[in-house]
Amino acid sequence: MQNDRLVSQLEFLREIDQLKSIIRQSPLLDQSRKENSAEHSWHLAMYAMILADYAIEPVDILHVIQMLLIHDIIEIDAGDTPIHSKTDGSQAERERNASIRIFGLLSGEQGENLRTLWEEFEAGVTNDARFAKAIDRFQPLLTNIFTNGGTWAENQVSQDQVLNRYRPVIQSGSPELWNLSEEWISRYFGPVE
Amino acid sequence: MQNDRLVSQLEFLREIDQLKSIIRQSPLLDQSRKENSAEHSWHLAMYAMILADYAIEPVDILHVIQMLLIHDIIEIDAGDTPIHSKTDGSQAERERNASIRIFGLLSGEQGENLRTLWEEFEAGVTNDARFAKAIDRFQPLLTNIFTNGGTWAENQVSQDQVLNRYRPVIQSGSPELWNLSEEWISRYFGPVE
Repeated sequence: MQNDRLVSQLEFLREIDQLKSIIRQSPLLDQSRKENSAEHSWHLAMYAMILADYAIEPVDILHVIQMLLIHDIIEIDAGDTPIHSKTDGSQAERERNASIRIFGLLSGEQGENLRTLWEEFEAGVTNDARFAKAIDRFQPLLTNIFTNGGTWAENQVSQDQVLNRYRPVIQSGSPELWNLSEEWISRYFGPVE
Repeated sequence: MQNDRLVSQLEFLREIDQLKSIIRQSPLLDQSRKENSAEHSWHLAMYAMILADYAIEPVDILHVIQMLLIHDIIEIDAGDTPIHSKTDGSQAERERNASIRIFGLLSGEQGENLRTLWEEFEAGVTNDARFAKAIDRFQPLLTNIFTNGGTWAENQVSQDQVLNRYRPVIQSGSPELWNLSEEWISRYFGPVE
């Protein structure tokens, strides 16, 4: 006799295997290939675990880790949106629909809770979400620094563009990580004015 | 003025990027390639989060997730040990040395705490570790079921071997997940005696 709840949970866990095939812009640090969104999510959870002390306000680390583990799952339907690309309303709509379909594979409260968690991350208003978003921006910044410019060099992104796209998010969640980021950016591009 | 603690933390986060290049025996569910240990760790954390209710005793889910996120990091130095391979004392020694070197990149308590967490997982005695180990065995079992035998078919593993290698670990952490596993194994190989 099968347990329906367990069957739907395993269907969800099976579905999200596809996150391993969503390819991001950022390379691995050894530049052997591009990173996928599943291993990226793992790395972000590790970043949050190790760097939690640098959050602007104390965070609920379980909540932050869970947010980072699930934040990219919607890409299975909606694709990855690189930091340095223009987005439009239709992308937001695709992501919302993806969150309904994919988290909806989980019956009842569990699916609702994950969708609420994803919305909290997207809104970026709560303290935990601000720190999670800062980490999600800080890791690719480090990747670019550690790979001689990475996607900045590839896309000929200017120092101003980098500052505009990384500063608000990282500074809002962790001023201390932003201070270090600014130092690195300045070393890579030249002094920040 | 750089913060030495932060520098060592970033050195650790940089080092563990290599887990994305440790290739496991298990394929992705679409069989396009083998899984790596970083995305595997992400998937296990998701399994734990979704299936926590099936643990034999209530677990500290943050503790379990952290254990699963870090449990394979030692493979960066020691390599992956497939479930269906013989291991010897020298592999355990390599893993211990790896845990000292890699977690030792983190200064002070943080490195010590991660090494203790890894040792707790390895020992598999506490309630949280038993559930974490059950999840670490349950995910590849599902992969094999979902890919028409996967590594079992590849390595001509018998039903007895599967039962011997999966049952003790999964049953000890989650009898309910073991019941379902047994049903699947029986459907794949034929009835369990």
